[in-house]
Amino acid sequence: MSPRIEVGVLGATGMVGQQFARLLANHPWFDLTWVGASDRSAGKRYKDATSWRLDGAMPESVANLTVNECKPGNAPKLVFSSMDANVATEIEQAFAEAGHIVVSNSKNFRMEDDVPLLVPEVNADHLALLRLQRENRGWKGGIVTNPNCVAVPLAVALAPFKKYGILKFITTSMQAVSGAGYPGVPSMDILGNVIPYISGEEPKVEIEPLKILGELKGNRVENLAAKVSAHCNRVGVIDGHTLTVSVELEQKPTFEQLLDDIQNFRGLPQERNLPSAPPVPLLYLHENNRPQPRRDGPRDNGMTVTMGRLRPCSIFDWKFVCLGHNTVRGAAGAAVLNAELMHSEGLL
Amino acid sequence: MSPRIEVGVLGATGMVGQQFARLLANHPWFDLTWVGASDRSAGKRYKDATSWRLDGAMPESVANLTVNECKPGNAPKLVFSSMDANVATEIEQAFAEAGHIVVSNSKNFRMEDDVPLLVPEVNADHLALLRLQRENRGWKGGIVTNPNCVAVPLAVALAPFKKYGILKFITTSMQAVSGAGYPGVPSMDILGNVIPYISGEEPKVEIEPLKILGELKGNRVENLAAKVSAHCNRVGVIDGHTLTVSVELEQKPTFEQLLDDIQNFRGLPQERNLPSAPPVPLLYLHENNRPQPRRDGPRDNGMTVTMGRLRPCSIFDWKFVCLGHNTVRGAAGAAVLNAELMHSEGLL
Amino acid sequence: MSPRIEVGVLGATGMVGQQFARLLANHPWFDLTWVGASDRSAGKRYKDATSWRLDGAMPESVANLTVNECKPGNAPKLVFSSMDANVATEIEQAFAEAGHIVVSNSKNFRMEDDVPLLVPEVNADHLALLRLQRENRGWKGGIVTNPNCVAVPLAVALAPFKKYGILKFITTSMQAVSGAGYPGVPSMDILGNVIPYISGEEPKVEIEPLKILGELKGNRVENLAAKVSAHCNRVGVIDGHTLTVSVELEQKPTFEQLLDDIQNFRGLPQERNLPSAPPVPLLYLHENNRPQPRRDGPRDNGMTVTMGRLRPCSIFDWKFVCLGHNTVRGAAGAAVLNAELMHSEGLL
Amino acid sequence: MSPRIEVGVLGATGMVGQQFARLLANHPWFDLTWVGASDRSAGKRYKDATSWRLDGAMPESVANLTVNECKPGNAPKLVFSSMDANVATEIEQAFAEAGHIVVSNSKNFRMEDDVPLLVPEVNADHLALLRLQRENRGWKGGIVTNPNCVAVPLAVALAPFKKYGILKFITTSMQAVSGAGYPGVPSMDILGNVIPYISGEEPKVEIEPLKILGELKGNRVENLAAKVSAHCNRVGVIDGHTLTVSVELEQKPTFEQLLDDIQNFRGLPQERNLPSAPPVPLLYLHENNRPQPRRDGPRDNGMTVTMGRLRPCSIFDWKFVCLGHNTVRGAAGAAVLNAELMHSEGLL
Repeated sequence: MSPRIEVGVLGATGMVGQQFARLLANHPWFDLTWVGASDRSAGKRYKDATSWRLDGAMPESVANLTVNECKPGNAPKLVFSSMDANVATEIEQAFAEAGHIVVSNSKNFRMEDDVPLLVPEVNADHLALLRLQRENRGWKGGIVTNPNCVAVPLAVALAPFKKYGILKFITTSMQAVSGAGYPGVPSMDILGNVIPYISGEEPKVEIEPLKILGELKGNRVENLAAKVSAHCNRVGVIDGHTLTVSVELEQKPTFEQLLDDIQNFRGLPQERNLPSAPPVPLLYLHENNRPQPRRDGPRDNGMTVTMGRLRPCSIFDWKFVCLGHNTVRGAAGAAVLNAELMHSEGLL
Repeated sequence: MSPRIEVGVLGATGMVGQQFARLLANHPWFDLTWVGASDRSAGKRYKDATSWRLDGAMPESVANLTVNECKPGNAPKLVFSSMDANVATEIEQAFAEAGHIVVSNSKNFRMEDDVPLLVPEVNADHLALLRLQRENRGWKGGIVTNPNCVAVPLAVALAPFKKYGILKFITTSMQAVSGAGYPGVPSMDILGNVIPYISGEEPKVEIEPLKILGELKGNRVENLAAKVSAHCNRVGVIDGHTLTVSVELEQKPTFEQLLDDIQNFRGLPQERNLPSAPPVPLLYLHENNRPQPRRDGPRDNGMTVTMGRLRPCSIFDWKFVCLGHNTVRGAAGAAVLNAELMHSEGLL
Repeated sequence: MSPRIEVGVLGATGMVGQQFARLLANHPWFDLTWVGASDRSAGKRYKDATSWRLDGAMPESVANLTVNECKPGNAPKLVFSSMDANVATEIEQAFAEAGHIVVSNSKNFRMEDDVPLLVPEVNADHLALLRLQRENRGWKGGIVTNPNCVAVPLAVALAPFKKYGILKFITTSMQAVSGAGYPGVPSMDILGNVIPYISGEEPKVEIEPLKILGELKGNRVENLAAKVSAHCNRVGVIDGHTLTVSVELEQKPTFEQLLDDIQNFRGLPQERNLPSAPPVPLLYLHENNRPQPRRDGPRDNGMTVTMGRLRPCSIFDWKFVCLGHNTVRGAAGAAVLNAELMHSEGLL
Repeated sequence: MSPRIEVGVLGATGMVGQQFARLLANHPWFDLTWVGASDRSAGKRYKDATSWRLDGAMPESVANLTVNECKPGNAPKLVFSSMDANVATEIEQAFAEAGHIVVSNSKNFRMEDDVPLLVPEVNADHLALLRLQRENRGWKGGIVTNPNCVAVPLAVALAPFKKYGILKFITTSMQAVSGAGYPGVPSMDILGNVIPYISGEEPKVEIEPLKILGELKGNRVENLAAKVSAHCNRVGVIDGHTLTVSVELEQKPTFEQLLDDIQNFRGLPQERNLPSAPPVPLLYLHENNRPQPRRDGPRDNGMTVTMGRLRPCSIFDWKFVCLGHNTVRGAAGAAVLNAELMHSEGLL
């Protein structure tokens, strides 16, 4: 049995940081031994510096860790990052320069040409960008990112359509409040209500899937040349982003072909049986009123993207509903799976 | 001052029937003097036959009316109908034959060639179909319908775009639970959840706006030749359906032109100052997170359609959000406004 | 017709301040001509200084008022106050010294011996404390307060029991999120959840009703000598605090006597037909599942306290449910009614 | 290793029946091999007869079982019952006569003198009533019941107080919608609302805890001689009933004594390490705003009762908040634990 790997978390006291702490407790490969947060928290024990917002109790194993400043040095080689966007650029860069592998949930580097934006079932080969990144930037370590919480289920759900040539898709999201962190969305705004706007969300949803679904050509990724239009909304759901999607394809597969492609969709995480990999990354539900966020979001610990209602679209070719757990598959769980993929590739 | 007009309600004990009772109490023109319901209720007083589900108390004026069977005869000439679809065809027809004007919220006759499907601000001229209807069917009375609760805000919001040639639109609805009546949607299904399906809804949403936005040519309506694709969802909201819309136009107006058209959109109800007409039928809200169903649905007693976030769509031309109060503007209030229009046209 | 009275609002940009602005627009006696807020807002127009959080649009009449610093001087004689507790003491005192009548929703002076804590239907005679207050403090003006949002419905519901000698009552509240202001309760905390704690609330609920229900003896109020125990909880409701109450009485009225007392309960506001007075201040609902906050909170613009389920308690004598609209009857509406009472007493 | 025990479920297609199916899949001792339901379902496969309402998928192991009529004969000796109250008396009796052990969640036999009403941590010794039951009724089998979903957390939370002499308690419940089954509570009734009434609930809450906390004297149970008053409410929560409790005691322990008793409270299930036993049956949470149903209900698969906010009551002695998962600890999970206790006692 291979030796365990020590890992750290940058921004460990925030909501996504807490998800990292939860997911890394009892991880079969990784030991969380180092937590970093703002200077205000540094020096305190994690349990004293953190207002635990997740269900259940804080894992014992992290509770007594001492919080560090977010500076490289004594941190483990592998660090997960859930830094706020306004400080992530500088800090993640400092860690990468100092030789750390930064597996980041922050948006800052996602669209950089030499940074992988990974969904391991979809574009594991984009990890090759790491070599370019090191050459370009002279870093000993590197940065690998996971997508926005809407882009993940979109990319997974559209991956089986890719071989038919995706030309356009329009999507409307109904997003859970946990995506806004804590305190996040005021209850006065969302109880019995819908907010038809999420700051900064639509541009991310319109560009990130194109990179994820893009082709690695030499040492660069050629984005998918599809047009995307997104309408992002907040609804009174705790976890799980639900999306309606209409998509136009170049080729015209039958319903049976598409459904078959969807149901047989698997990736490297399933092939290698990575610890956080769901058995079926894209689960098609045949009931006509599924997927639903409260009922289907938690499947396989939140790592399965669910899909349903595939039917012809009278304007484009097909329309469907898909759903992903935003704080797991769309955030911390995505990063952990990325790290597992990297380990299985011998990159850690 | 003109004499008051007696009116009746078919299906008066159901949810939409109760809305009729509420809206007709204190109406400046109409007196609700007759209520009809199922045989089981006939003979009872309205207050004994009805489980009142609306906020506030049952209006005194209706409480002591005796419930009649849904048969023409002693009913007033003008009857509103909120019959269940499985009985509406026969009953509404019987009333129309017997000389009654049936102003119906039921879906049964909406798409018949000789039946007006009215939104008075949009297609008041379609009332001309009544003549054809009488000729065709030999009825002394007639049937006039209002659209589905999603079709109303869609038609109102798209009306200002019509002059630029509407080619296509894709819409995703986030619909309130009151649209499903009572008991309707179980709380176990919708608390903290989204249901991405509403039985029978999408076909109605895809066809009704085309008739409403169609052109009266001679004595028939030529439907708008646009393509429509709808995704209908239920969310945990009490009243108010929120829609995202992407639309493609033949001509290419500027943002300013469009906004101007939207803000200046008025119809006959405003011109004639009909009692239930909202001052501004389509209210554009400039805040980037509006309209919202809980906050904007109740404007002007639920009769105003609100709209916001008009912006370019990277696939079609424009995208926006619109919202209508489903049990008022999308049901009983729509029918009352239809009757007011007919009265102002001298048709009652 | 008597001349109109100019009024001001201290803390006008906050949530309760906005309720004042809403309630004072179109008031038959009062003209809101002056708004005060923090130094940061002073000098701006009200509409530029305020994030309007209430349903519907900001009243035109207040939108263009210039925000003043909260200093006496050019303010009208009558000012409503919804200052934060941490600044209310100093500012309200400064206004009272300078000759203003401060009708306050803040908690700071509520329990002072020489300050009326008013519910006009219950203890209008406590206004007499104003004389004492002026003597004690040498103020030319004065301060009159309204109770906490739970204490109001409790005091109104218990008022008819008072003549039988209230010995003890235990109450559990289920309180709406609007009571916590904006942004207030995070949606992550309350969606599909109950929070069994509200900071600082139980002590207020346990003491304020005793003063309201107390007897004016000479120039002081002797608090009701009852024991009170409160359990305060937050639930996912927008407006309306629901309370269960078990009460022990010295005398033993019959159910019919009590119900009669409850249904006939009226006060000075009803007698004098004050503009904001509900026709029936304590409305008993006979359905076994009422009152309910969403359905019964808004009755009579939120000014009616509703009550139901009066039945024997196997430990004390009686138990029941009561409900009040927390931001209207329990805050701004309470203060407006206090001012109307004072005006009808010739005290303005 | 002991041989596995075959079990059946009466009323297997309902909501509680589905919980049984879920909890018994992968049970270390029990194999669910027999399901019974109404005649309408009999003969169908379970998956065809059942609208699965629980989160996640129906367990494979039950999906293909053929549904039987609810008649003894080929059923296993041990059957769990979640029959509707209107048929449970006759059917459970028939099974007990025929030699089956019926472990029932139905209310019908709970208060019979010779039927155990069990909470294994509290009154495991009441199982002795089974002997009396067999003598009285001449049954070869027998019936054992678990309490109402509010009575369970009440009884567990009050158990540590028992030694100090419980004289009185008043409780207000805030109950989840899952307690009403499916379709159960209409969303129109509970979204953003509270319903201060649950049909038939308060009498059960006022009597069942007295039997559970009663003393076995010879072959009968002497109920606890305490007075109880309950206020039951429905709130917009999926799972988890939250209770406020004020309790008066004969003796006067200190806070430290009581807290110590609460934190050290354990029972036979913990001692014997029964498969469904939570490690700590009554978990005291020290944060001042806990327990909360969404966050604390699911602890230890829903089997832990949580408690918090123990503090002096100004009328009685102590007040606190407690919480139990209603469909697990308050229904199917309670029955499974009862069966595990019986097995560990050699009674199966």
